[in-house]
Amino acid sequence: MSRMRELVDEVLAEYAWLIDNDKLEGWTELFTEDARYDIIPRENHDRGLPLCLISCKNRAMIRDRILALRIANEYNIHYDRHIIGPTKIAEQDESTVRIEANYLVVQTNQDGDSKVFSAGVYRIFLVLVDGRLRIKDMVVVADTFRVPTLIATPI
Amino acid sequence: MSRMRELVDEVLAEYAWLIDNDKLEGWTELFTEDARYDIIPRENHDRGLPLCLISCKNRAMIRDRILALRIANEYNIHYDRHIIGPTKIAEQDESTVRIEANYLVVQTNQDGDSKVFSAGVYRIFLVLVDGRLRIKDMVVVADTFRVPTLIATPI
Amino acid sequence: MSRMRELVDEVLAEYAWLIDNDKLEGWTELFTEDARYDIIPRENHDRGLPLCLISCKNRAMIRDRILALRIANEYNIHYDRHIIGPTKIAEQDESTVRIEANYLVVQTNQDGDSKVFSAGVYRIFLVLVDGRLRIKDMVVVADTFRVPTLIATPI
Repeated sequence: MSRMRELVDEVLAEYAWLIDNDKLEGWTELFTEDARYDIIPRENHDRGLPLCLISCKNRAMIRDRILALRIANEYNIHYDRHIIGPTKIAEQDESTVRIEANYLVVQTNQDGDSKVFSAGVYRIFLVLVDGRLRIKDMVVVADTFRVPTLIATPI
Repeated sequence: MSRMRELVDEVLAEYAWLIDNDKLEGWTELFTEDARYDIIPRENHDRGLPLCLISCKNRAMIRDRILALRIANEYNIHYDRHIIGPTKIAEQDESTVRIEANYLVVQTNQDGDSKVFSAGVYRIFLVLVDGRLRIKDMVVVADTFRVPTLIATPI
Repeated sequence: MSRMRELVDEVLAEYAWLIDNDKLEGWTELFTEDARYDIIPRENHDRGLPLCLISCKNRAMIRDRILALRIANEYNIHYDRHIIGPTKIAEQDESTVRIEANYLVVQTNQDGDSKVFSAGVYRIFLVLVDGRLRIKDMVVVADTFRVPTLIATPI
């Protein structure tokens, strides 16, 4: 069990590190090929509405998203910092684990001003692949409401 | 020692998860029957003033507080997210542990705006009960000053 | 490996605890005698500019900084809270470890208002000394831009 918690810590650190260092292509490698990645506003989530801000049905879609972002973000320069935790292990067996982890993304604009950009929870189902955890299903439930254009960066 | 740190991680994750998912009745179960739960402004704490914003002498009082909250909060809809850590283990033996953990509560209002609601430190004394840690004494020292009505939700 | 991650958790918790409890003299003890401690704005860092907001070449300089701070801070009363994580272990052997950890400093002023004061990343090289990790080299890359006078407190 201890070993699984450590692997979870590792993959979450890697997740944050890749996004915050603008290594978004590397970030897509954390997902399995058939991975789902959704961002859903908490309001919709709590009402059972399936409307997502971002909905990717597999890794190819996640990659497309990043490609689009590389073009769009030319004019939206900012820095992200992810703070993640605490992490609840909801379910696990030898090769899979289901977790929930609170997250906070602090964004700094070009004037050097830092603000809470998004707060919410990650609900992630991970599978062990060659000794490392990979994301098979991830739902980001975002408390913070932002217009879709502003969440072009993955959360 | 490693095992104790893991148990601490688990109970803090559970603590945050229960509050943030509005499972406040479940949250009261994290406390022992004779548990103390106080919220004290840092200003008072540093001056040795015992004035608390919330002071519960046992779990029955904690439960009463939640009952009252269920009525009061009808008109104060918001989402909380707890970010906790790093966690310092100050003292431990086989069945008890004393920790200090920084916390940050980010609150999102109905307009989808997220803000730092409270920052401070948890000082918790926990005891092992049937393989899980339970809170026997918890003092929340809150740096952020808010009028009492706004901290109806546990921190 | 697990043991090293635990030692890293411990030293980061200690780091935050010492600063947040205003035990700055104790905080200097976390560094080795020849330790470097730099704070550099992310903008400069990303452009390869070596301009630091704070640059200490050894522990004696770190201590001098704290001495100066004790005088200067008489009129700048505030509370800091460090939230640190997730932590990526970038490299390790038996007695050293290189990590990167996101940090967030929330500062509360005398009116009880809490705000994001600084967000960024710690890049730290640590060495094992008598069973505890000590900081040999630390670069704080700060996303948030603040005038130097305001970062008198270590981050």
